[in-house]
Amino acid sequence: MYAEKSPLLAVVGLGPGAADLMTPRAKKAIEQADVIVGYRTYLNLVSHCIPPAAEIISSSMMQEIDRCRKALELATQGKKVALVCGGDPGIYAMAGLVFELASSRENHCEIEVIPGIAALNACASILGAPLMHDFAAISLSDLMTPWEIIERRLQAAAEADFVVVIYNPKSRKRTEQIVETQKIFLQHRSETTPVGLVQGASRDNESVILTTLGAMLEQEIGMQTTVIIGNSQTYTWRKKMITPRGYSHKYGLR
Amino acid sequence: MYAEKSPLLAVVGLGPGAADLMTPRAKKAIEQADVIVGYRTYLNLVSHCIPPAAEIISSSMMQEIDRCRKALELATQGKKVALVCGGDPGIYAMAGLVFELASSRENHCEIEVIPGIAALNACASILGAPLMHDFAAISLSDLMTPWEIIERRLQAAAEADFVVVIYNPKSRKRTEQIVETQKIFLQHRSETTPVGLVQGASRDNESVILTTLGAMLEQEIGMQTTVIIGNSQTYTWRKKMITPRGYSHKYGLR
Repeated sequence: MYAEKSPLLAVVGLGPGAADLMTPRAKKAIEQADVIVGYRTYLNLVSHCIPPAAEIISSSMMQEIDRCRKALELATQGKKVALVCGGDPGIYAMAGLVFELASSRENHCEIEVIPGIAALNACASILGAPLMHDFAAISLSDLMTPWEIIERRLQAAAEADFVVVIYNPKSRKRTEQIVETQKIFLQHRSETTPVGLVQGASRDNESVILTTLGAMLEQEIGMQTTVIIGNSQTYTWRKKMITPRGYSHKYGLR
Repeated sequence: MYAEKSPLLAVVGLGPGAADLMTPRAKKAIEQADVIVGYRTYLNLVSHCIPPAAEIISSSMMQEIDRCRKALELATQGKKVALVCGGDPGIYAMAGLVFELASSRENHCEIEVIPGIAALNACASILGAPLMHDFAAISLSDLMTPWEIIERRLQAAAEADFVVVIYNPKSRKRTEQIVETQKIFLQHRSETTPVGLVQGASRDNESVILTTLGAMLEQEIGMQTTVIIGNSQTYTWRKKMITPRGYSHKYGLR
């Protein structure tokens, strides 16, 4: 048996990095935790709200999967655990791994996911208003997903005129996927389609580049870059990327 | 000329409704505003942080477009304006309309978008971890988008195995689109595919239903419902909806 109303493991989204983009609910979960588990970079972001008595489990060497296992183990022992991660744990992040592990072992602790401002929310706000119409989020990492599936999704999203948010565009060893992505989109959209590249959103090292589908590969794109490709209607104005809310010009509304 | 560093119009995302899911940056923008513009429901959510001297422009009758025009007009006159909206202004919301109006009239005020926890972040966190893999957000409203475009996107997303977040699934006059959506998805996914229905996320009237693609239409779906349809890998465990992070079983990893 487990108590429905007393979550012991909180999977906490810290947002993109700026302290004022972290929600009070996330802050409180950290303040009330017996144990805080996380990657060092993220723990540094929240050092101001970690209670002095809290146990801290941090290792840049420990694998993500081991951190989640450890967090579940401690929560099962009755400790209040906050497992912290950047962005939103619910979007391509730790929430899934925690539930996957919990469900495979029938762990008996409650799990609460505290949402955060994800990369897509933060990057969109910096770029202007690119996500005003239907969009797709696609990760180019083929570590756990066959490239054929990713390619099919890129094709589908390009053909159906979705705005597209690309996660994990590139790594040191993985450089061809973003080249393929550009090729696929150029089959369906003009070279002048606006593309936004954001790195380190809301942090000191924030970098924002507004470019085009044709020229995007001339810019530096790294592991941490979020790439937003506009749809056929997206335009730029004063270094902002704007997707209209509809296709209303077709109806003579503007 | 306009000053690069002094945004006068802040488009502020309040998040899903709970006060502790609103970011400190959003709160501060409201506290520092000369004028606060917004729909009454949202102003009520933030009444505790509205400064006594602030002018409030609220009308449930005023059209969204008139609120944005008014906000831009006041900001152009030199006032610090906070235009508040629920969720994230950057996802299907007010940020786009503000930029569209500003760019069509060459308004000379700075515009800052303050991101918020959007419906998709909030609903995903409540449902468990449905957005762990590539997903698409699609609005079924055909007010400003031809149905053929929406239908093409539903087809594309269903075929390419995206998790799908449906916005505006239904209104009093518009009831057939969600029926069509189910039909399209049933051509590509099993009847037992998990579907989550969330209404009033994080508010007092929050309602969460976990159902299946085959049975979803037996549940009440309204204007404010967010519908999340799992991909081929999504499963349920203890009333949670979980999408694995990859297709790793194909590689024998689990």
